[in-house]
Amino acid sequence: MPIGEFELIERYFSKGFAQRNDVAIGVGDDAAVVQVPTGSELVVAVDTLVSGVHFPAGMAPEHVGHRALAVNLSDLAAMGASPRWCTLALTLPSVEERWLENFARGFRELALRHDVALIGGDTTRGPLTISVQILGVVPTGAAILRSGAEPGDLVFVSGTPGDAAAGLGLIQGTISAAQPDDADQLRQRFLVPTPRVELGLALRGIASAAIDVSDGLHADLNKLLVASGMGAELYLDRLPLSRALLDSQGFASARRLALSGGDDYELCFTVPADRVSAAERAAATVACAIRRIGTIEAQPGLRCFDGGRPVSADAAGYDHFAG
Amino acid sequence: MPIGEFELIERYFSKGFAQRNDVAIGVGDDAAVVQVPTGSELVVAVDTLVSGVHFPAGMAPEHVGHRALAVNLSDLAAMGASPRWCTLALTLPSVEERWLENFARGFRELALRHDVALIGGDTTRGPLTISVQILGVVPTGAAILRSGAEPGDLVFVSGTPGDAAAGLGLIQGTISAAQPDDADQLRQRFLVPTPRVELGLALRGIASAAIDVSDGLHADLNKLLVASGMGAELYLDRLPLSRALLDSQGFASARRLALSGGDDYELCFTVPADRVSAAERAAATVACAIRRIGTIEAQPGLRCFDGGRPVSADAAGYDHFAG
Repeated sequence: MPIGEFELIERYFSKGFAQRNDVAIGVGDDAAVVQVPTGSELVVAVDTLVSGVHFPAGMAPEHVGHRALAVNLSDLAAMGASPRWCTLALTLPSVEERWLENFARGFRELALRHDVALIGGDTTRGPLTISVQILGVVPTGAAILRSGAEPGDLVFVSGTPGDAAAGLGLIQGTISAAQPDDADQLRQRFLVPTPRVELGLALRGIASAAIDVSDGLHADLNKLLVASGMGAELYLDRLPLSRALLDSQGFASARRLALSGGDDYELCFTVPADRVSAAERAAATVACAIRRIGTIEAQPGLRCFDGGRPVSADAAGYDHFAG
Repeated sequence: MPIGEFELIERYFSKGFAQRNDVAIGVGDDAAVVQVPTGSELVVAVDTLVSGVHFPAGMAPEHVGHRALAVNLSDLAAMGASPRWCTLALTLPSVEERWLENFARGFRELALRHDVALIGGDTTRGPLTISVQILGVVPTGAAILRSGAEPGDLVFVSGTPGDAAAGLGLIQGTISAAQPDDADQLRQRFLVPTPRVELGLALRGIASAAIDVSDGLHADLNKLLVASGMGAELYLDRLPLSRALLDSQGFASARRLALSGGDDYELCFTVPADRVSAAERAAATVACAIRRIGTIEAQPGLRCFDGGRPVSADAAGYDHFAG
């Protein structure tokens, strides 16, 4: 039996979410009303996922729900902002209660982990499309921008980029992995990305610039450089490659995936030389691995080095069309 | 030639929008950063339009752009909030530059009229779906809720409900109009709805409750009553029917459309008896016609009267399935 919009929201999206004291009016009126703390700015991002474009059409609904929120949390992480509230615009071809229940669970579990309240939403009939808007706060003037990198700053990346792209390849059958454990680990990195919210918060006042790696490390670092009006040296031999990626794909493919593959939702950020130890302590505090992979220079462009020798990104396996 | 996401945003959505001093970081970083004034609360709404569901598939793109923002502005109007910023998540089957240009124009013109800045967005490939999130502000505690109606409050509606539904019927060919002028006027009311932002602001501190009329007057007034835990008498002979609606559709159909038709984006609101003249002055100040159409009562339910005699809503033409 079809259920109406109101009942649908009530059943799957009204319970189990974070209850925040700063939500004056939540779901159920014409709009939500929330309180932004004095001395803070509001940080706003929106990301849309389309089935078959941003995730494989048959992906498990709990993973779709997780992903829809994770990609938005990742945007706030890159700003050093603390997530507070979100809205969910959900377009569904039909109301399948089992699907919705699991979607809501994946979404809710990640929201709870970050104490994010769902304050509004909209369900409409149509091809599966999920648009999430995330709202967070940051002390006034403290947001980490893409544009703050300066010559001499060091370039860092969190985690092990390339894993998610390998995971997607495994799911789609375009690549394989001899060891089931490697395959599982890589698939999980695609299916359940970890937005680096705590790392972003810890880097406030330390990082000079940041971006989240959604389109691929090379492409996203380039965006940061363009926004900052800078260039960089990138040390390919310092790219943090996971054991699972290396063992299953071999060195050349692993490096190519780490440079070009998207969907990692790691942070790529820059740190002035005199704050490097502060950055390393901050990352250790939140138990997030970071690796120094380059240096900012005034000369525009991204120059790759391997064992101290200049190499072209293309020769290193960078794929311009993978992003 | 296909153009990329960045170029697309740059070309159609970066220029001509309101430039606001409270936007610290606009489009182009991982997220936007804005300043909510001290003493204000943040008001948030999101509404999604799907082609063929929320508007006819071939609707002119400037009307789609206008509508996508108007329905969201209408939500803020119903809260008495002042719109400030918005984000746009646009899913397009293909990049048709002419379509985009006109869509952006319709969206932008309405945004400019209300001094709303576009601070973020996302363009994705897929079936035409437009999700707008609107952000506004209201002095702390001053938002007009659905839940504030009290016994003895008077029920008002702005404008002439039913016109938009007639306009849609004319566009779809399900109804006709003898006079071209009537048809034009009604079609315009569907194609270019006017969100009652100024009226909502003027009613702050005066109205006890409000909702915007998107699903139909009967249905939306009922939502307000349920949220308030109240009932109401509705005086059908006081429904403000436009001359174009009456002349083209006749009395019975006009009343049915006014009760059941959606898409008007008028405000339905309640006012304590001792503030009625304040409400009338407020509406006159913003040049918006309002009409008293009912009275709130403690007894739940919506009771219709015609010339002082009780009548059922169904007998008066209310269509439960039109919403």
